[in-house]
Amino acid sequence: MGEQKLTLVGAGPGDPDLITVKGVKALEQADVVLYDALVSEELLRFAPCAEHISVGKRAGKASVTQKTINQLIVQKAISKGHVVRLKGGDPFVFGRGFEELIYAQSHGIETEVVIGISSIMLPGLYGIPLTCRGVNQGFSVLTATAADGSVTKEVSKAARHASTALIFMGLSKLGEVIAHYLKEGRGDLPVAIVSNGSHTHAQVVAGTVDSILDEIGDQRPASPALLIFGEGASNAIRLNNLKQKAGII
Amino acid sequence: MGEQKLTLVGAGPGDPDLITVKGVKALEQADVVLYDALVSEELLRFAPCAEHISVGKRAGKASVTQKTINQLIVQKAISKGHVVRLKGGDPFVFGRGFEELIYAQSHGIETEVVIGISSIMLPGLYGIPLTCRGVNQGFSVLTATAADGSVTKEVSKAARHASTALIFMGLSKLGEVIAHYLKEGRGDLPVAIVSNGSHTHAQVVAGTVDSILDEIGDQRPASPALLIFGEGASNAIRLNNLKQKAGII
Repeated sequence: MGEQKLTLVGAGPGDPDLITVKGVKALEQADVVLYDALVSEELLRFAPCAEHISVGKRAGKASVTQKTINQLIVQKAISKGHVVRLKGGDPFVFGRGFEELIYAQSHGIETEVVIGISSIMLPGLYGIPLTCRGVNQGFSVLTATAADGSVTKEVSKAARHASTALIFMGLSKLGEVIAHYLKEGRGDLPVAIVSNGSHTHAQVVAGTVDSILDEIGDQRPASPALLIFGEGASNAIRLNNLKQKAGII
Repeated sequence: MGEQKLTLVGAGPGDPDLITVKGVKALEQADVVLYDALVSEELLRFAPCAEHISVGKRAGKASVTQKTINQLIVQKAISKGHVVRLKGGDPFVFGRGFEELIYAQSHGIETEVVIGISSIMLPGLYGIPLTCRGVNQGFSVLTATAADGSVTKEVSKAARHASTALIFMGLSKLGEVIAHYLKEGRGDLPVAIVSNGSHTHAQVVAGTVDSILDEIGDQRPASPALLIFGEGASNAIRLNNLKQKAGII
């Protein structure tokens, strides 16, 4: 048995090739892999001899509680050695990775972090630049859904102040988010919705604050989805063929 | 000669192992690699037979103009085939990748994008969660320096509204940024400065809006640096030993 250790690894936004080389190296040295529902199971091939445990949570339906995950990490590190905690996207962006890290450290477990590509980077795959010279000099990242299920205050802040906003957990709150933008007179602002990240079944819908609900029509974008409110989102239309060319979807 | 093609690849924030598997595959198929100053030259080993061209630009000192880079991409794609444009971080976050993509497409060159880990993800390496349950539900990303060298309006917006702000190109404007936060009565807000990303010579200084200039003292953090203004930055102190454990610096 190797040393007791937890490595938090960001698996990236879906496409298994979007994990880092460092993440692959960690998997190759794992005794146990705890992985999320959003993580591609193909990545487990890098750890063929390790124990694989799914601790998937999806959109509120908690199959395994955070407390159980924390305890499992410590238990497995003590009984088996090197635990790799494979998380969708980046461990620290809406990922509760910090809680797992602190908990393991409080039990004397050595910890390491391998950062990953957050879903924040996804717009680039669809031709949507997060920043573009002469257009915007920054952007905001926020979750639309608070722990208690309500709409966060960040949404009204973004509608008022953010040149570009990337909104997580916003699909079920889309009507309310749009209402905030309309209240600020931003009906013309381009909007894009990216569903299922870089997975082969990804989906992109684009329009404006005024038109996006019509653009969606009966399509019902799947969760998880990232909402992009900002000028750059207009390029999701202009470069509509980019997504095929990117070989992702 | 292969087909005429441009692949924009995000090399990640310094540590060569933080490139994606997909990025490595693109390099392996490159006929020409155009790389930035911020990219680790170790990555060129994945493209041993390709032509390597440094087009480094650093903090305003433009050694090769953007126009020249654009033209070089097209020229090399036509004469040699597959051009990989290897950019520090992610190609679309303050990276002008979008301009290169559009220019190549306007010359009939096929394009592909391999997203990378932006420096936005770096705080995680130093124990600074970008979001943390019960603390913040979002963050803002901005550049402090406009194209003409002045301080951007995004800085005053962030000082007023952002629970957490990640500020690029802010080191030379640190005094002005701090003045904005003081004006908003946020002297107690934790601040961290991460220099040189995930490179072996990375450096972290932490404090508060009130104390950060004293904390810096004579250290003069190196450029490029990322400024983090937000509650999470206080953990840069608490987990000070994390950076050694991460095996990065």
